[in-house]
Parts: sequence; C-alpha cells; structure tokens
Amino acid sequence: MKTLLLKKEDIEKIVSMKDAIDAVEEGYRAFCSGQVIQPEYIAMPFDAPRGELDFKAGYYSGNEIISLKASSGGYINNPSSYGLPAGMNTVLLWDARNCALLCIMEGSYITGYRTGAAGAVSVKYLARKNSEIVTSIGTGNQARNQIRAVSHIIKIKEIHAFDAFADSMEKFKKDIEGELGIPVILEKTSRAAAEKADILITTTRGKGPVIDASWVKPGTHIVAIGTDMRGKQEFDPEIFRGAKIINDSIEQCVKKGETWHPIDKGIIKKEDIYAEIGEIVIGSKQGRTNDEEITIFDSTGMAIQDNMQAYKLYKSALDKGIGTEFEFFK
Amino acid sequence: MKTLLLKKEDIEKIVSMKDAIDAVEEGYRAFCSGQVIQPEYIAMPFDAPRGELDFKAGYYSGNEIISLKASSGGYINNPSSYGLPAGMNTVLLWDARNCALLCIMEGSYITGYRTGAAGAVSVKYLARKNSEIVTSIGTGNQARNQIRAVSHIIKIKEIHAFDAFADSMEKFKKDIEGELGIPVILEKTSRAAAEKADILITTTRGKGPVIDASWVKPGTHIVAIGTDMRGKQEFDPEIFRGAKIINDSIEQCVKKGETWHPIDKGIIKKEDIYAEIGEIVIGSKQGRTNDEEITIFDSTGMAIQDNMQAYKLYKSALDKGIGTEFEFFK
Repeated sequence: MKTLLLKKEDIEKIVSMKDAIDAVEEGYRAFCSGQVIQPEYIAMPFDAPRGELDFKAGYYSGNEIISLKASSGGYINNPSSYGLPAGMNTVLLWDARNCALLCIMEGSYITGYRTGAAGAVSVKYLARKNSEIVTSIGTGNQARNQIRAVSHIIKIKEIHAFDAFADSMEKFKKDIEGELGIPVILEKTSRAAAEKADILITTTRGKGPVIDASWVKPGTHIVAIGTDMRGKQEFDPEIFRGAKIINDSIEQCVKKGETWHPIDKGIIKKEDIYAEIGEIVIGSKQGRTNDEEITIFDSTGMAIQDNMQAYKLYKSALDKGIGTEFEFFK
Repeated sequence: MKTLLLKKEDIEKIVSMKDAIDAVEEGYRAFCSGQVIQPEYIAMPFDAPRGELDFKAGYYSGNEIISLKASSGGYINNPSSYGLPAGMNTVLLWDARNCALLCIMEGSYITGYRTGAAGAVSVKYLARKNSEIVTSIGTGNQARNQIRAVSHIIKIKEIHAFDAFADSMEKFKKDIEGELGIPVILEKTSRAAAEKADILITTTRGKGPVIDASWVKPGTHIVAIGTDMRGKQEFDPEIFRGAKIINDSIEQCVKKGETWHPIDKGIIKKEDIYAEIGEIVIGSKQGRTNDEEITIFDSTGMAIQDNMQAYKLYKSALDKGIGTEFEFFK
C-alpha cells in the first residue's frame, strides 16, 4: 500500500481556481444533502507570539474519502525567527472503505484557493446580476484569491481596495492589474471603498470592526471571510439587522464567525439566519430575490471544502504522474 | 524545512518496550502536572463492516511537541477484501514553537507498545509486590504487548491464558514461551484463568462482560485494556464495588472506558474513582496500601502517550540516520 506525497511545487503544477470553485460548490451541495460527516474540529490555541493549530476532518460519501487538514496560523514571528511562514497546512486523505492512507499533501494552495472559491460561489448565487464593482477590504494573499475566484463568476469592471498598510495596497494594485488586467483604485478610507461596492469582500485579520452599517448601500453582497474564530470581527454588527444572512455552516458561524457578533448583541437571533449556502446551491431555498436586499455570506471554512479539492488534486496528480510514492505501512 | 518520514520497518529498528514504558510513565506524570494540552478527540465511526477512524492530538510543554495520531480500527474485512490490516496508525509531530511539521511515522508499533506500557506502569504502582501469576484474557497482539511490558516490571512465574479462539491461544502460548521463556497455561474457561490471577489483564474486543466479580480474588490488580469506546465491555460492573479504581484519564474513562458501566448501573459514582494514574506516579496520591484490596486500572489511551513515545523515536531516528527526509513546504 503506497501513499502519494505531494509537495508544494507538485500542487502548483495542478491546482486551478476553476477546479477549486467546482469543488467548493460540490462541497456545499453535499453538506446540505446529508452526504457529509464533519465532526467538531480540534483547536489548539497558544499564547502569543505563537498562534493556533487546528485539525479539521471530513468524510464525503460521494467520493468515499476521509480528509484531515492540519492548519496552523498566527505564528507572527515565524518569518523573522525561523524563516517559515506564519501558518502552514498539511492535508491527509484516506480511502473510507478501508482507511488506507492515500495521500499527504502540502495544503497552502488548497486553503487559499478553497477560501477564494467560497466567496465566488456566494457571488454566483447571491450577488446582483449586474454587479461589476468589487471592494476589497484587506489586500493580502486571501484578497488576491477572492478576486481571482470572483473574476471566474462575473466580469469585474473595477476594484476599490483599502488596507491599513499602504505598501500592501500598492503591491496588491500592481499584482492584480498585472495578473488580471482589472483596474484597482486605492482608497484612503475603508468607508470610501465600502460605499462603492456591489460586492464587498473583507479579508482582514479580524482585529475589530472596520465596516460601519451606514456605509453599505442597498443591493450589496457582502463576503465576510476574515472572521473564523471567536474574538475576530470585521463588521459593525448592525449590518446584520434586516439583511439576508447566509452561512457556510450555521453551527460554525454562530460559534465563531462574523454571525456570532450580532447574535451576542441581541441584534438577530439564530433563527434569523436565512440559509446555509448549500441549501441555495441545491435549490431548496432561493438566493437573492430583489436588487435592494443586502446579502451577507459568512464563511468560516469547512473540512468538506478541503476534502473535495484535495481529492481532485490527488486524482489529477495520479493521472499526470506527479508526486512521490512512499510505503509507510510495509 | 524538511519532514522526516519513518516507515514501519524504520520504526522496527529503533522501537523498544523499555523506552515505551519510560515514555508512558513520563506522559502520565506530565498529564497530572499541568504540562499537557489534550483536546477532546475526533471520532469518526462508520457502519459495519467498516470500523472507526480517530484523531487524537496532544501537546507537551516539556518537549515542545504537538502530536496527532490518526488511528483506524475494526475494519474487519480489510485482510480478506484489501490485503490490509483491520486497523492502521499514522503519527505526525510538529514543533510547537513554529508549527513546522517535523515527522510523519507509521504508528502501529507506537500504539501497540504504548498500550502495553500503560499496563506495565499500572503494575509498577498498583500490583502487590509479590505478584507473579499473570492472567491474560485475550491472546492477540495486545495481549503479547502487555506480557512483554509487564515482564520488564516483575518476574512473571506463569501465565494463565484464555481466549474464545483455540487457535489464537495455541499460537500465543508458542510465541510467548519462545520469546520470553515464561510458561503459558491455557485454560478452558475465563473463570479458571481469572481465579488464578495476581494480575488480571483483559485485551478482548470488548463485546460483552467476560469476567464475573465473584471470580476475582482479594489483592488482584486488574488491567482493563479492551474497552476504549462506548459500547465495549469486558467486566461484570460489580467488580468496581469497593475496588480501588484508577483511570488513565477520568474524563475519558467515565465517557467510554470500562468505568462507564458501573457508573451507568449506579454501582459507583464518578467521585468514587480513586485517582488518575499520573497522580500516583507523581506521588500526590498513594498507590496500593494493602495486600487485600482489588485495584482496577482502566486505560482508554491518551494522546500524550503517543506524543512522548513518538518524539523519542523521532530523536532516535535522527541520531541514527534512519528515515527519509522530504520537503513538503518548498
């Protein structure tokens, strides 16, 4: 029994945003169709300057794969002290029929792409059909992945970007204009950026609310990415009042997503959450029904997204003869 | 940043029961000294003929290692349908200071040895000093590991063994007499075996009670290994009435160990559990205090045992130049 090892440079050869979007959409569909087992994940938080190591497992009956992702983040001194990134990801895949370990792969592309793809799937089902202006609050790697993914769904006319770090903004503009040919307008305030949005994407580190409710115009679709653990926050919770709220997983979002804040403040109740995104993908609930409503997609990230995408990459690597086989169990 | 890969045959070259016993004893000590973070583990049970895949994570501040073990079991058709064992184990180690992935190793020896070692540590602290007769109910691989480990702690005069499968008993006798030179007497009933015990070790698959309370003589030390998930059972719960009950982790044992059964039946309360084994190892509680009491050690298995032992093996492999380095993250 051989296990396929896929290093980062192997994944680079086969990863694609289009495939990631398909995988994530399939994942949401499966999650809301009773085909997924996704247990409570393990979180191991440490005191600063250390970060957190999480373990997220998921099983999908459609591909008979059990996945586990070990995902670290927030090790802020890693680049200076160890020459390592602040977070790293490793994904393992087992054949659910016998629990043979099929594959171990570096998981940073999987995480980055599936998170970008999540925003794009929400845009497909929830943004106004005439959306063309995207606002990006935050200009790091994940902001790039969001833009890359959304550009597969709509034709973006222009991007308005804001970040607390001017250097990061300049680099984002240069990279996105070069890669995608979409004009990027750098704004002086998050307000100026937010007010222009048809689609408002936030990928900050969640250190406090950066978007006031009054800045968001009717008909905006919000993609809230940065809040994936208790304590993080990107929005004035008043934004949730009267909005159409969609979660990736209600169970996760009410515990540790952006959705936790308005519930905590008594602005909404859990019952006010309109749907999980998968319910809209499978058609059991409608998406956007008019051009005036504000839709909010709160994404905390689910194991099933990793499962779907990692399995597609594993199969692609096998097909193309990419990777290194290793015999652990002999 | 390189990750060390250790296959089963690499581990075979460096694993030792003596080291495993030291590692497990250190693990129990650390667990009861506030040096361990051991989150609730992930269990993924499937319907027969599939089994279960578990993920157990643990951090020890003494070695600055985070470990994760992925452990499958109960895939009863694996040998016939896939040519694979019914259960497999993989252990991953991270440097807790930066979450670099240090090592991925095949984990069957770790699991087998640390479970054997657990029994031996309990014998060291809880069995009568003049113990010399060991009874083994169950004659599979884990029964062998228990005997191997206990033989490091006491001089075993003879072993009385019982198993529902005659073939398994015969092979056990041949193997143990050949390997350790200890006479093995095969008994016709579990009662005949149990009644002779100074130390009574159970390693059955936990399909129902096999030991009646009335068969256990005063002064016996019981090592209850086979019950590590809800639904499994090896003992008449009346055995717990008036016995000195020691758990590896009280939190785990009351949920899914042998200790669950007498609590469920109202025979004991959680408060009647005398100690965790680590409290006895560090000396905050006494072990056995007379030759008449019946002591019961209920072991469900803890991540910290895997952590300690796997880290020792990792260091040993590095020292000896064993294993294959692989660059996932470049």
